[in-house]
Amino acid sequence: MSKAVVGIIMGSQSDLRVMREAAQVLEDLGVEFDLTIVSAHRTPDRMFDYAKSAKDRGLKVIIAGAGGAAHLPGMVASLTTLPVIGVPVKSSNSIDGWDSVLSILQMPGGVPVATVALDGAKNAGILAAQIVGTSDEAVANNLTEYKENLRTKVEDSIEAVAKSGWKA
Amino acid sequence: MSKAVVGIIMGSQSDLRVMREAAQVLEDLGVEFDLTIVSAHRTPDRMFDYAKSAKDRGLKVIIAGAGGAAHLPGMVASLTTLPVIGVPVKSSNSIDGWDSVLSILQMPGGVPVATVALDGAKNAGILAAQIVGTSDEAVANNLTEYKENLRTKVEDSIEAVAKSGWKA
Amino acid sequence: MSKAVVGIIMGSQSDLRVMREAAQVLEDLGVEFDLTIVSAHRTPDRMFDYAKSAKDRGLKVIIAGAGGAAHLPGMVASLTTLPVIGVPVKSSNSIDGWDSVLSILQMPGGVPVATVALDGAKNAGILAAQIVGTSDEAVANNLTEYKENLRTKVEDSIEAVAKSGWKA
Amino acid sequence: MSKAVVGIIMGSQSDLRVMREAAQVLEDLGVEFDLTIVSAHRTPDRMFDYAKSAKDRGLKVIIAGAGGAAHLPGMVASLTTLPVIGVPVKSSNSIDGWDSVLSILQMPGGVPVATVALDGAKNAGILAAQIVGTSDEAVANNLTEYKENLRTKVEDSIEAVAKSGWKA
Amino acid sequence: MSKAVVGIIMGSQSDLRVMREAAQVLEDLGVEFDLTIVSAHRTPDRMFDYAKSAKDRGLKVIIAGAGGAAHLPGMVASLTTLPVIGVPVKSSNSIDGWDSVLSILQMPGGVPVATVALDGAKNAGILAAQIVGTSDEAVANNLTEYKENLRTKVEDSIEAVAKSGWKA
Amino acid sequence: MSKAVVGIIMGSQSDLRVMREAAQVLEDLGVEFDLTIVSAHRTPDRMFDYAKSAKDRGLKVIIAGAGGAAHLPGMVASLTTLPVIGVPVKSSNSIDGWDSVLSILQMPGGVPVATVALDGAKNAGILAAQIVGTSDEAVANNLTEYKENLRTKVEDSIEAVAKSGWKA
Amino acid sequence: MSKAVVGIIMGSQSDLRVMREAAQVLEDLGVEFDLTIVSAHRTPDRMFDYAKSAKDRGLKVIIAGAGGAAHLPGMVASLTTLPVIGVPVKSSNSIDGWDSVLSILQMPGGVPVATVALDGAKNAGILAAQIVGTSDEAVANNLTEYKENLRTKVEDSIEAVAKSGWKA
Amino acid sequence: MSKAVVGIIMGSQSDLRVMREAAQVLEDLGVEFDLTIVSAHRTPDRMFDYAKSAKDRGLKVIIAGAGGAAHLPGMVASLTTLPVIGVPVKSSNSIDGWDSVLSILQMPGGVPVATVALDGAKNAGILAAQIVGTSDEAVANNLTEYKENLRTKVEDSIEAVAKSGWKA
Repeated sequence: MSKAVVGIIMGSQSDLRVMREAAQVLEDLGVEFDLTIVSAHRTPDRMFDYAKSAKDRGLKVIIAGAGGAAHLPGMVASLTTLPVIGVPVKSSNSIDGWDSVLSILQMPGGVPVATVALDGAKNAGILAAQIVGTSDEAVANNLTEYKENLRTKVEDSIEAVAKSGWKA
Repeated sequence: MSKAVVGIIMGSQSDLRVMREAAQVLEDLGVEFDLTIVSAHRTPDRMFDYAKSAKDRGLKVIIAGAGGAAHLPGMVASLTTLPVIGVPVKSSNSIDGWDSVLSILQMPGGVPVATVALDGAKNAGILAAQIVGTSDEAVANNLTEYKENLRTKVEDSIEAVAKSGWKA
Repeated sequence: MSKAVVGIIMGSQSDLRVMREAAQVLEDLGVEFDLTIVSAHRTPDRMFDYAKSAKDRGLKVIIAGAGGAAHLPGMVASLTTLPVIGVPVKSSNSIDGWDSVLSILQMPGGVPVATVALDGAKNAGILAAQIVGTSDEAVANNLTEYKENLRTKVEDSIEAVAKSGWKA
Repeated sequence: MSKAVVGIIMGSQSDLRVMREAAQVLEDLGVEFDLTIVSAHRTPDRMFDYAKSAKDRGLKVIIAGAGGAAHLPGMVASLTTLPVIGVPVKSSNSIDGWDSVLSILQMPGGVPVATVALDGAKNAGILAAQIVGTSDEAVANNLTEYKENLRTKVEDSIEAVAKSGWKA
Repeated sequence: MSKAVVGIIMGSQSDLRVMREAAQVLEDLGVEFDLTIVSAHRTPDRMFDYAKSAKDRGLKVIIAGAGGAAHLPGMVASLTTLPVIGVPVKSSNSIDGWDSVLSILQMPGGVPVATVALDGAKNAGILAAQIVGTSDEAVANNLTEYKENLRTKVEDSIEAVAKSGWKA
Repeated sequence: MSKAVVGIIMGSQSDLRVMREAAQVLEDLGVEFDLTIVSAHRTPDRMFDYAKSAKDRGLKVIIAGAGGAAHLPGMVASLTTLPVIGVPVKSSNSIDGWDSVLSILQMPGGVPVATVALDGAKNAGILAAQIVGTSDEAVANNLTEYKENLRTKVEDSIEAVAKSGWKA
Repeated sequence: MSKAVVGIIMGSQSDLRVMREAAQVLEDLGVEFDLTIVSAHRTPDRMFDYAKSAKDRGLKVIIAGAGGAAHLPGMVASLTTLPVIGVPVKSSNSIDGWDSVLSILQMPGGVPVATVALDGAKNAGILAAQIVGTSDEAVANNLTEYKENLRTKVEDSIEAVAKSGWKA
Repeated sequence: MSKAVVGIIMGSQSDLRVMREAAQVLEDLGVEFDLTIVSAHRTPDRMFDYAKSAKDRGLKVIIAGAGGAAHLPGMVASLTTLPVIGVPVKSSNSIDGWDSVLSILQMPGGVPVATVALDGAKNAGILAAQIVGTSDEAVANNLTEYKENLRTKVEDSIEAVAKSGWKA
């Protein structure tokens, strides 16, 4: 993992169910990353160390996922100048996800978190690749291809519906 | 302020408009406190130092107020075993206060924050006094008197309405 | 139960499913408590008696859980000067828990309820222990140990993920 | 006020601004009422006495208005078998009125509160008159006339718009 | 059903699942009622006839349940001077029940609907009995007994918990 | 107004402030309309007559605006087979407009209301013109021109910003 | 499909589960339509072509369904002067449907979308038929018959409940 | 503006009030940008051209602000592989900002938008600079200095409060 440019962290092992999609899409797009667990509330010292050393370790982007009163993305953002992407996770104790969304999105002026949709870990991975791609042509090309694949898959479904009809 | 048993902190000077009420009621109830500004997002190191040293400095309770994605109360709670009271502040950039409320209230299992009503700094002060009062009879007595005053004020308004009538 | 310093009450037997966690964590933290059912709406006289006599019976903190239009925590707080912790329960007839949360949290000035997360009975227990711990060193030490255990468990999960990888 | 059949109560004098409309419409409809302040949280004993003695004092209906965590209507309903009408008041510390609405509306099975719209004190008065009118023909006739007046006023506005045109 | 004093109506047969509880509690409380389906949107003429003739048919109270954009309770209230109780039903196409609640509760000044909790048909039945009981001593006595039963059932659960303990 | 093909109605004269925009845009687009007040709750008979005779009077579309528990659009839709456009009005007694929106939008299967944005009367007028334009070439052409004007106005603002700069 | 006057589109094949109801009711009402998949976000060029050519292909109405941040209906409306009906779909990644509803309903002045209820595809089909019916007498007659069937089905359920009783 | 690496766009000139803050902070951080108006709904062709040519024009990041049913950020993201930052604007016709937030945040898998807080244009600018800073050391250094300034300003307010006291 020595060449990782994206760091994926999450508040608890149970978030891996959702956050795994960020790892998968980064792998697909050819972006090196590492992934671990950092809890804002249960391992605050570890969070401080992780965030403060992130840039020196060579990371360019951090993806942080958390649920409920989700402080991990915002606190990491307060401790680094790297872009931080926040993934609101709809955890079991969440009020329909609103708590996760609002406690990640509504950061005060000066400390942004790039928030994606509820449980939107895949988009967090793509966004991280887009950021890496602003200075890495290979990744940028992979993104172009990825976008074409999105279109192709829709075209396949268009044909499928045309063939089988709407009643199928 | 050397004898402070309650620490009042807030994320920004603009929160003082609301948080001042906590200080006032503690003064009224005879509880020593100190008050300062600690920003989770702009002074994270200070927040760490404040929270980790709180118990040794003699504090028994911390009152923390913040608005928007309000991480201060929860992060302080992650760094101390003292009871932490959170005051959701309806700041100018808040979505009707929901963000402040949810990012303070919905803490994960293991790290509680005693949350009071939106802009409920006065109640935060009373609650802190109630906690202090569990082992300080003088404060407990002041609380009993305070409660009686609440009743007396209602009785005054009852008479006022009875005298002037509902059309007044 | 003669030495109980924390009283746990709930509006209905069906709330025990949630409120049991408060009892468990108090037991784990070495805090004496008693637990019973007190319904604000179906046994109002019992609620009055319970709350008014709580301090004289030796209680230092009351934990009250209720769902829907949850009046138990606030009404108990109106009848005692002890700190009252409210647990919003997501009961079957609740509108996604919002009714329970708001009818416990939004208490008027003068009568605080220390509100925890929806179904957050475990945190209510820890908060009660923190309050007891402000004047009971043994309990305070147990809380320090509890916090260390939280960190240790995260460290175990970090290793587990490191070993098995994110695809597992 | 010795013949009052409707009792109007509210949690604080500041609610009179809204609750006055209930009194006015009852006066207009020829229903005897009395009006006073009863605070669930600051005068709980008075609330108990008021509610428990209401039927014996000759009341047939109680109208209770309150804001925020509004417990007055539901607690009064728990203490009497009379129909209780709840008026959610959008008080200054309310979260857009949602707290008042939900803490009055969402009563558990067994203890109903007849809830009207946010700040809907006028409708509370009319509803009380409708209940009284189920056994008082004079009031029932007044209600029929009131309904005709509603229609007549709309007809006046129809003519006004027809005459002045929509651009006016 | 010739002596019915309460009329129970609902927008669709699927609402019977919920509205049945109103019928059951009225039967238990000794109040005569009839029950049928009246759809505001699919049988508007029937709704007009039902509401306009209700008083002459001897009804004293109407209970109307509906889901989604629930217009039945409010429209019936616009067509009669009888008290109308509205039951918001959480139907399958509802947005978590909010649409049903708000389209019943938020009636304009002049035309009240006595709204009960989401799916609160049992409370609608009790409320109707309370209204009938304002002029029918037998029903009033049944309500007193019903309230005592509520308390007794809680007392049974208190004993059950005391006996089996909170871990059971 | 004998040639009106669009009927604009609203629940109260106070809604004219908002609904006037529908009239204005229809006038601009060359569509004949009439406008009056019809209250679902205060003039239900008038609403019945209006809706049932609408098609025979030559109307092709009805625009209905109302606030709070807004039943006018849906009830009119239940009484005609013409397309009905609903305008949720943020009236003074509304809960931030949610009640108006949900009680118009969430119609049950079988009885649609074409809902536009909160206070979106202008869009209701344009939508009515689009419907008329499906069989009236002159109106369709006016709509094409209207759309071009929308673009032109944006282009003007682009130039304005380019000229004055973002600091102006 | 050469004679289609209604075009049904949706953002993804998974929406067909909901959108199929629009097709079914149009078939029942004798309205010609075609149906395909057009993704605003994955096939934006196709969306442009579809919307810009819709009128020339003979379409009179477009029904567009989408979930989450649902841009398809509004973007299609920006590219045509035909009436566009939007169906908010409660997709798996939606926050209880609120995102779909608001991103379709709240269009800016100048570009209306006729929004129906969450998952209200059937009503979208009926509304499209109503629009077609403003200039097609056969479709208008089918709608009259459809409305009568709605009433008849309610009447059947009335009899069913009368026969079996409310306890069945 | 030939060297711009960030493009700032907004749906209407009225959004400039909010979006200006993004421009200001980019200027402060030494990042070249251009700024103009692009309306998704009123100038869709312009939006297509802007987004498709963005990368070739040398842009590395796009900041897009819009209110209500805010489709601009998501549609631009569908047309480019550059990272797109979305700013939900609380426009006058918005429902408390919820529509803007949800229609920008809740993008489907495959097409991310980096969403910042409601009216959070300043944070959008900082985030854009952070992205540029991943490959531009000068900008990265400016960000470090900016972060230090945030801390310094808090320290100033700490001293101010310490000096004047909480009662001032």
